[in-house]
Amino acid sequence: MNSGIITVTTDFGITDPWTAIMKGVMLRINSRANLVDISNSVPRCDIKCAGYLLGSCVPWFPRGTVHLAVVDPEVGGARRAIAIQGENHFYVGPDNGIFTLALRRDKFVGAVEIQPGKWTLDNISKTFEGRDIFAPVAAHLSNGVSLETLGTEIKREDLVSLELPGNERHGGCLRTSVMHVDNFGNLITMLNVKDLDRPVLSVKIGDRVIPMKLTYSDVRDGEILAYWGSSGFCEIAVNKGSAAEELGVKSGDLLEIKLGR
Amino acid sequence: MNSGIITVTTDFGITDPWTAIMKGVMLRINSRANLVDISNSVPRCDIKCAGYLLGSCVPWFPRGTVHLAVVDPEVGGARRAIAIQGENHFYVGPDNGIFTLALRRDKFVGAVEIQPGKWTLDNISKTFEGRDIFAPVAAHLSNGVSLETLGTEIKREDLVSLELPGNERHGGCLRTSVMHVDNFGNLITMLNVKDLDRPVLSVKIGDRVIPMKLTYSDVRDGEILAYWGSSGFCEIAVNKGSAAEELGVKSGDLLEIKLGR
Amino acid sequence: MNSGIITVTTDFGITDPWTAIMKGVMLRINSRANLVDISNSVPRCDIKCAGYLLGSCVPWFPRGTVHLAVVDPEVGGARRAIAIQGENHFYVGPDNGIFTLALRRDKFVGAVEIQPGKWTLDNISKTFEGRDIFAPVAAHLSNGVSLETLGTEIKREDLVSLELPGNERHGGCLRTSVMHVDNFGNLITMLNVKDLDRPVLSVKIGDRVIPMKLTYSDVRDGEILAYWGSSGFCEIAVNKGSAAEELGVKSGDLLEIKLGR
Repeated sequence: MNSGIITVTTDFGITDPWTAIMKGVMLRINSRANLVDISNSVPRCDIKCAGYLLGSCVPWFPRGTVHLAVVDPEVGGARRAIAIQGENHFYVGPDNGIFTLALRRDKFVGAVEIQPGKWTLDNISKTFEGRDIFAPVAAHLSNGVSLETLGTEIKREDLVSLELPGNERHGGCLRTSVMHVDNFGNLITMLNVKDLDRPVLSVKIGDRVIPMKLTYSDVRDGEILAYWGSSGFCEIAVNKGSAAEELGVKSGDLLEIKLGR
Repeated sequence: MNSGIITVTTDFGITDPWTAIMKGVMLRINSRANLVDISNSVPRCDIKCAGYLLGSCVPWFPRGTVHLAVVDPEVGGARRAIAIQGENHFYVGPDNGIFTLALRRDKFVGAVEIQPGKWTLDNISKTFEGRDIFAPVAAHLSNGVSLETLGTEIKREDLVSLELPGNERHGGCLRTSVMHVDNFGNLITMLNVKDLDRPVLSVKIGDRVIPMKLTYSDVRDGEILAYWGSSGFCEIAVNKGSAAEELGVKSGDLLEIKLGR
Repeated sequence: MNSGIITVTTDFGITDPWTAIMKGVMLRINSRANLVDISNSVPRCDIKCAGYLLGSCVPWFPRGTVHLAVVDPEVGGARRAIAIQGENHFYVGPDNGIFTLALRRDKFVGAVEIQPGKWTLDNISKTFEGRDIFAPVAAHLSNGVSLETLGTEIKREDLVSLELPGNERHGGCLRTSVMHVDNFGNLITMLNVKDLDRPVLSVKIGDRVIPMKLTYSDVRDGEILAYWGSSGFCEIAVNKGSAAEELGVKSGDLLEIKLGR
């Protein structure tokens, strides 16, 4: 199970050498690795955003892809360095919850705490384990090295888990929150159409009641709508505009969903 | 005619999962595809800018490259999903004029309206046809699938065409406009040296008369010049400065060109 | 000595066609080239920043990598177009000092002034030698073309050299300056742990004395520290914050290092 593809998700930005350094390290270990950026512009230290991006992408990549994710505010501290094997993909990064959402979309098979040694660089700095631990391990996994050899087993329940916005239901109403605001100002929630046995009638943010539609063009330009997004999650948009600007809403803000029968 | 190269042009930005999701979809279909970003930072819904970027790049890519372009404000609405074969390249995206400029630099061979089915994903969302239709079709084209099998023929004259800034000539004068302002603040027009049988004496923007030179260093640092740019188009720059800032000019603004004999 | 890898460092930004055009040119010459961006967001004309990024990455890439770097404010003027062979890597770009730092981390073998001809494009524009000279030469080097055939020899001492911040020592004190401010607001100096035979006790910026630590988590969240960074250089950071914001310091600003015995 290895596709030769390694995805990269970091908060390193696009004007620093850190991402390219990790790519150099990986290419020295697997010169044929196919490196695909998910994003290197995750807001600084925003584990939740990185987890969202990764979780959104995971279902679409080929079996055997290795996902390297380094948003790592605790680097050099006590947090563990981990590698996880799912039914379809591998995951390498800090044990800080960054893979929580991805593991909802892949089946957990096993995890290890990475032990410095044969599969890491020789000298491990206290401030850049992305280069010294995560990148080499990701490259070795893409070469077919087996998970067990990388370190000592961690049980799934012992992995750090990220608290994701839950969906609280009270009779005909349900509360959820905004998980991500995208480049178009669309608001993406974690409420999935599959989690509901009743239709959604409308969405309420503050005092604003937003009608449920199928797609942008079902409302006029500049009008607001709610809809089931391309990954099955409830989203809010303004046709050819920005819902985030229109509503003054940001990641984490609450929504109320009115359910039908 | 397939190079295995697929270029990607979108307005998805660099902090969202959408581009990586399309890449995952393409790599599942063609695991050896060589993916090259033209830009994912096209201003939101700016079809003209995306068309300019794509048109500028097209002449330089190897024969058989597939160009995937998704700036798609009408997604889910009535606009068609198309694939075009040129003499040298393939083009996949919405039928909204995004390929107008590229088709001036490649020879039109044929076009189809993509039919959902064998070469698209099974479930087509109303809001992300980039993932469900365009990415899989681009990947299949890069695998050698033939254009005709993808859908029903569209004649060239039935493709949506983007209105590009024209060059109006009145005797010894010519009017054109700014097509693109680049990262250096250089102003790029659509007036090509090949379209003229007379030399350009000077360029006028507002009240400012700008001399025609060969290259930046023909004027002092901070001084303004007009010149024939690297793709044959008339450009205006400030040597080690920004013409856009100096002149307060933006994309779409008018220029007057004074011709010699 | 060729890995098939070509890195790209420019100040072209991410919304212009220039970088993709160079990639197209390279893929026409070497369709199997593995193209890795170091950064295309180098501040406009900032040769020092590009040199820092490149120098930081060079030690981590596989032997035989070709580094294409185009931050080129003097394009079309008198500056030379060069290709350099190091013990481990190749370098292609303008002779303006952009490779100074990289050559401190690789062993100089030889350099040539590139002669237009067989290994460049036919028509060389005055404003985009990245496309017409540097990209084709980089691609040919990645194909195994030998350095000598590209042009006429230049001795190392005749290459333009960038003035880098030096480290002045006065007894128990040492003066250095900030080379780069990274995405996290960390301040990176050019003072390497290897250059010192005495320990560093503390770092002073303005009136602020900063203690020397091992890693971020050795101080509380929001507190400032100095430490030996992942490449051996003295750095200053705020744990989960931005030292650049906290101190109001920018690239080029001075630091005073207090040495022990």
